[in-house]
Amino acid sequence: MRPPIAPLTSLSLTHDGERLSVLDQRALPDEIRWLDGTSPDDMIAHIRALAVRGAPLIGVSAALSLACFARTDATDDAVREAARKLREARPTAVNLMWSIDRMLATFRDAGRDAMIREGEAIFHEDVALADRIADHGAALLHDGDGVLTHCNTGGLATVGIGTALGVIARAHQQGKRLHVYVDETRPLLQGGRLTTWELERMGIPYTLQTDGMAAIQMREGRVQRVIVGADRIARNGDFANKVGTYGVAVLAAHHGVPFYVAAPYSTVDLSIASGAEIPIEMRDADEVRGARGSFGTVRWAPASARVFNPSFDVTPASLVTAIVLDRGVFTRAKLSEGDLARGA
Amino acid sequence: MRPPIAPLTSLSLTHDGERLSVLDQRALPDEIRWLDGTSPDDMIAHIRALAVRGAPLIGVSAALSLACFARTDATDDAVREAARKLREARPTAVNLMWSIDRMLATFRDAGRDAMIREGEAIFHEDVALADRIADHGAALLHDGDGVLTHCNTGGLATVGIGTALGVIARAHQQGKRLHVYVDETRPLLQGGRLTTWELERMGIPYTLQTDGMAAIQMREGRVQRVIVGADRIARNGDFANKVGTYGVAVLAAHHGVPFYVAAPYSTVDLSIASGAEIPIEMRDADEVRGARGSFGTVRWAPASARVFNPSFDVTPASLVTAIVLDRGVFTRAKLSEGDLARGA
Repeated sequence: MRPPIAPLTSLSLTHDGERLSVLDQRALPDEIRWLDGTSPDDMIAHIRALAVRGAPLIGVSAALSLACFARTDATDDAVREAARKLREARPTAVNLMWSIDRMLATFRDAGRDAMIREGEAIFHEDVALADRIADHGAALLHDGDGVLTHCNTGGLATVGIGTALGVIARAHQQGKRLHVYVDETRPLLQGGRLTTWELERMGIPYTLQTDGMAAIQMREGRVQRVIVGADRIARNGDFANKVGTYGVAVLAAHHGVPFYVAAPYSTVDLSIASGAEIPIEMRDADEVRGARGSFGTVRWAPASARVFNPSFDVTPASLVTAIVLDRGVFTRAKLSEGDLARGA
Repeated sequence: MRPPIAPLTSLSLTHDGERLSVLDQRALPDEIRWLDGTSPDDMIAHIRALAVRGAPLIGVSAALSLACFARTDATDDAVREAARKLREARPTAVNLMWSIDRMLATFRDAGRDAMIREGEAIFHEDVALADRIADHGAALLHDGDGVLTHCNTGGLATVGIGTALGVIARAHQQGKRLHVYVDETRPLLQGGRLTTWELERMGIPYTLQTDGMAAIQMREGRVQRVIVGADRIARNGDFANKVGTYGVAVLAAHHGVPFYVAAPYSTVDLSIASGAEIPIEMRDADEVRGARGSFGTVRWAPASARVFNPSFDVTPASLVTAIVLDRGVFTRAKLSEGDLARGA
C-alpha cells in the first residue's frame, strides 16, 4: 500500500486524500464546477481544453496527477509514458516541463513513494513562491496607482496568491488603494471572465476594458503601472506571455508607463538565449471566429474565415522595466548584465 | 403630390421609389435582413441600435429618411423636429450633422420638393466621393503588401465603395495582390463580422485576428501599411475613429509601418482645432461584458463588472503618415502646415 497524498486546498485545485480535483475555469464566473483530474489522461484533457490554465497551476496540476498515478498499480513504464504525455500537454509552458522533469528525476532516484511526497512539495513550494513574488512586487506599486493587467495571473493561475495578480492582491492587503484596469484578453477572455471574478472576490476596484482600449486609458493618464505574468522567460529577459502582452508593452513604453513581469524563477528557461527560440503554440481558428463560455460556443465571423491565433507572443526585454521573481526584482539593467542566468 | 424619390441601390441601403430600406448589419455575416427606415423615428432607432453604422452611411441614411418624411403630410415644424432628432442620433458622427444641416438649409431656402432632390444628391455624391478616396488611396498600396485595418469601412459603412476598405478594394481591382489583416474590433466586432464578409464577397485574401494580435503581426513583418477610416477629423489632423485605432497607430509608429486615414472631406470639422475637442460617446457596459450577434446576446464577465466603453478614441496627427480625402492626399507635413483647413 503506497502512502496517501495529504489534503491540499487552493482556489483552483484540491486533493482530498483520494481524488485530485481542479476548478473548471471555463464555467466561471457564473458557475463553480470541479473536474476530476486524478488520472493523467483526464488531466491532459483538462489542460488541453483550458479548463486548467495558468503556467504555474498547470505545472502543479500535472505533477500531482502524476503523483496520483504513481499510487496505482500502473507499471513503471506506464508512469514514464504518462509523464511523457503530461509534459507535452501544452508546448509553451516551461513550468509544466520543469515540474514533470523533477517528478521523473525523483522517480528515477528515489522511487514511487518519493514521487508522492515530491508532488506535495511542488504544491507547497508554489504557494511559498507566489508569496515571495507578491512581497517583492507589492513594493513596486504605490497607493493610488492605476494598474493595468492582461490575462489572468491570480489564484486561478497558481495554487498560491498568484503572480502578477498576486502582486496586486498583496499591495491591496497592505492597504494601498489601487484601481485595476483589466484587459479582457481575447480570444479566451481570461481577463473578462477570471480576473474580474477574482478581483470581485477580493474587493479590489477594477474596470474591465477590451484589449483595444488599453492605449487610450494610458493616454488619458489612468494607468501608472502595467504588470503581467509570463509563460517562459529567456536568458536575456525576453519573455512569452498571453497574446496581446507584446502590444501592451509597446504602448506602455510609448506612454512612459513602467512595465513589470511577475513569475516564479522556474519560468526562466536558461536553455534559450532569447525570445526568438520560444516555440509559439497555434490554437484553433474557432476561438477567434467567436467565443466560448459557460453559455456554450457562439460564432460571429464567417465560418470559413481564415484566422491567426497564436496562444502567446514574445516581448523583448528592452520593453521591460523589471522582472519580479521569487528570487527578487531584476531590473532591465540587471537583465542586460546577464543576472537572470546567475539567478541573483 | 410631391415628387417621388428615384430608385437608389447600394450594398447596405436601397430606395425602391416608395420605401427606404437599410441592411441590418447586426444580422451579418450569416443572415441578409433589411429594415424599413422610411420614417425618421425608425431610422433613429436603427442608427442607435447600430443596425446602420459607418459615419458616411449614417449621414446618407438620415438625409434620405428626412427626404422621405418631407414627402408626407407632416407639418413644416414636424420636419424640423425630425431633423433635430436625426441630427442627435449619434453624437460623434460629424457626417450626420453635416448632412442634416444641408437638408435643413435646402428646406429653408428652396422648400420640401428640393429636399427630396437634395437627399438623392447626397447619396450620389457619397458614391462619387468614395470613388475619389479609393483612387487617391490605392496609389499608396503596393503589390504584395500586407494591409492592416480596424473596424469596417467598406460598402457597409458608405453607400459607395467605402473609405479605408474602399481603398483596399480599388487597389485589388487594379490587380495589386494584397493580404488584409482584419482586427476583429471589440466590442462590436465590426471587423470580425462585417469586414471579413465584405472581403469574402470581393475575393480579397485576409486573415482575421483579435485586436491584441496586431502588434505581433507587425513585429513579424507581415504588415506593410495600416489604413483606417475616421469619424471626425480636427483642423490639425487629429482624428476620432473606432476605439482601438489609437493603439494601432502607436504600434504602427513603433514598427515603422505607414499609417493612413481615409475619409470624405465632410469628416473634417474645421470648427475644432484639435482632437481634444472631440466629444466621445460612452456606450452600454453590456457590450464589453459580452457580445452580441445574430446568435443573440451572451455575457462572460460578471454581470456587475464595472466597464470602460468609449465608442471612439482620438489619434494625434503626429502618428498619421497621411490622410486620404476625396480632395487628395494630405501628408503629415501638409497637415502641420494647416492645409486641411484650406482644403488643398
